[in-house]
Amino acid sequence: MYENFWKHKGEETTVVTSGWQHISYFSDINNVCWFLEPGLKSSITRLHKVVGNAVTEGRHIVVGTGSSQLYQAAIYALSPPNAAGPMNVVSAAPFYSSYPLMTDYLKSGLHKWAGDAYKFNKQEPYIELVTSPNNPDGSTRQDVVKGDKGILIHDLAYYWPQYTPILSPADYDIMLFTVSKSTGHAGSRIGWALVKDREIARKMTTFIEINTIGVSKDSQIRAAKILQTISDSCDHANQTHAETFFDYSYKLMAQRWKELREAVNKTELFSLPDFPSERCSFSGRTFGQLPAFAWLKCEGEVDDCEGFLRRNKILTRGGKHFGASMKYVRMSMLSREKEFKILTRRLPAIVS
Amino acid sequence: MYENFWKHKGEETTVVTSGWQHISYFSDINNVCWFLEPGLKSSITRLHKVVGNAVTEGRHIVVGTGSSQLYQAAIYALSPPNAAGPMNVVSAAPFYSSYPLMTDYLKSGLHKWAGDAYKFNKQEPYIELVTSPNNPDGSTRQDVVKGDKGILIHDLAYYWPQYTPILSPADYDIMLFTVSKSTGHAGSRIGWALVKDREIARKMTTFIEINTIGVSKDSQIRAAKILQTISDSCDHANQTHAETFFDYSYKLMAQRWKELREAVNKTELFSLPDFPSERCSFSGRTFGQLPAFAWLKCEGEVDDCEGFLRRNKILTRGGKHFGASMKYVRMSMLSREKEFKILTRRLPAIVS
Repeated sequence: MYENFWKHKGEETTVVTSGWQHISYFSDINNVCWFLEPGLKSSITRLHKVVGNAVTEGRHIVVGTGSSQLYQAAIYALSPPNAAGPMNVVSAAPFYSSYPLMTDYLKSGLHKWAGDAYKFNKQEPYIELVTSPNNPDGSTRQDVVKGDKGILIHDLAYYWPQYTPILSPADYDIMLFTVSKSTGHAGSRIGWALVKDREIARKMTTFIEINTIGVSKDSQIRAAKILQTISDSCDHANQTHAETFFDYSYKLMAQRWKELREAVNKTELFSLPDFPSERCSFSGRTFGQLPAFAWLKCEGEVDDCEGFLRRNKILTRGGKHFGASMKYVRMSMLSREKEFKILTRRLPAIVS
Repeated sequence: MYENFWKHKGEETTVVTSGWQHISYFSDINNVCWFLEPGLKSSITRLHKVVGNAVTEGRHIVVGTGSSQLYQAAIYALSPPNAAGPMNVVSAAPFYSSYPLMTDYLKSGLHKWAGDAYKFNKQEPYIELVTSPNNPDGSTRQDVVKGDKGILIHDLAYYWPQYTPILSPADYDIMLFTVSKSTGHAGSRIGWALVKDREIARKMTTFIEINTIGVSKDSQIRAAKILQTISDSCDHANQTHAETFFDYSYKLMAQRWKELREAVNKTELFSLPDFPSERCSFSGRTFGQLPAFAWLKCEGEVDDCEGFLRRNKILTRGGKHFGASMKYVRMSMLSREKEFKILTRRLPAIVS
């Protein structure tokens, strides 16, 4: 959905790779994460400083093939290898539907999905995954389990100023980010983790070493260039008055949410979550969340919102995939312009 | 080690990527492997045809983040999800030391490493991994378990004409390849599987979907260009008399093996495997294997060959990592020229 912005950027973000470059497995053997390209490391650190959305001081950066791999690396690193049983992994419902799958698909003896964090009350160690802003519902999250045996992973994929007001630099032990959500370059499969504890960063690196022997250098170098371009444009915005990437993407998200809310308000069949307005320390704008997904509720009699919308030619993902009621569905706000227009036309035309 | 060849290639293998390209997760939604770039698919098919080392007709191609991920995808796909116990995975010793690790690191309930295939005699289903030419010892391999409940995976990472005479196109159910060994571009993390059964290809795709939501497009597009350049040079070799990649890399391997054998022959402390000469259908040359690794044996009294060599300032990997005797070590034949020269100087200088 951000394709048009990048088309207008032209040369600045173009990467040229010769046949002999980046051939080796290794990037920086003195780093805990030996396959992290130094250029990507510095561009990540710089962007977080420019945006003010995460503390990088005293953190190790671990690069992953998207943040999915980093999530798996983190639960591997946090689960003791010789425990009596698998580690519990929980997240407050509604949660990202891939988390249970990624935790359990190999029937691991190290960790197991233990469901909704609100309902977890075992006196056992657990990992709580805190996704903020949350996928699927866009809400700001904190940990919810009231136990003392928990370890937290913060998935901050959407903590960028086009989706949410940046309030302060996030300062947690393990924080996950990804270019697919920050810049839109999903096809490059580049994510990164900011990790306070060296030993955990080392174990996450070991996971990625065994899983894929590192992460594509070509994509790391391309991602580095794109992140640098974004930081450059933010740094020079005052002088040049050119639109920065976050200006562009914020306006696009704000416009789409405006159109979606207008469409939903034309009917009484659906509702959307409301978000309080807050001041973004990065842009200075005051606004409420503009999530990458809309968490739509079917009001009234309809119990299977996904099925109801499907019969009305709108494809969504039903609430039960996210550990929630079937009265809810998740709709992408990052589709192509044409598809999004069709959605906002079809929604208000539905009759019960 | 092939860096110099690619440096001389210049422009031909250069990839230029603009900021707006390859942004999406998807490559070809009509393909079983929906994240496989069409250009990579055709360049893989073409190269196998040019070299004559594998049948691609009637095969599905699954791309992976290196062949490690494809190995994990294959054992996931071949292990029944609801079996009473985990599937046995075996390989004839000496075997690639990462196989046990990749099979067991998540303590999966789907599959477990069951060791040396020569010793496997359970009346249970099993997956046998056949690596040919073999890592670490370079030998040509066939399956060895005499059971009727086995499924085979063929790891053919080294079945290229710089390492071994190509005898005929490999024609197995699941065959794994990787650019890191064929062209030397390890940093791109691109491997591929040729899979006969559509359902297995689909399950392998599901694994990669959950594990990393696809494979770097940037690296796929670069790998496609490199494979095309190799095929082009082979096709035009007769007209232009230019050296092809496989000519270059064959000569380099042959030269290194000559130097290593000369070094080993100067002392009575070590021995190397011998390989029969065979005619390569691709190059027309008759030669014995030129493995990417040397499987060196300490003759005489020395029982811990790795430790013995370490004390003589040569770093290798001991036989026990490969399920074999400690009298053996694996040495890389793909190191940089300078390191290789040091190795061939130090080896004959060792005194017992």
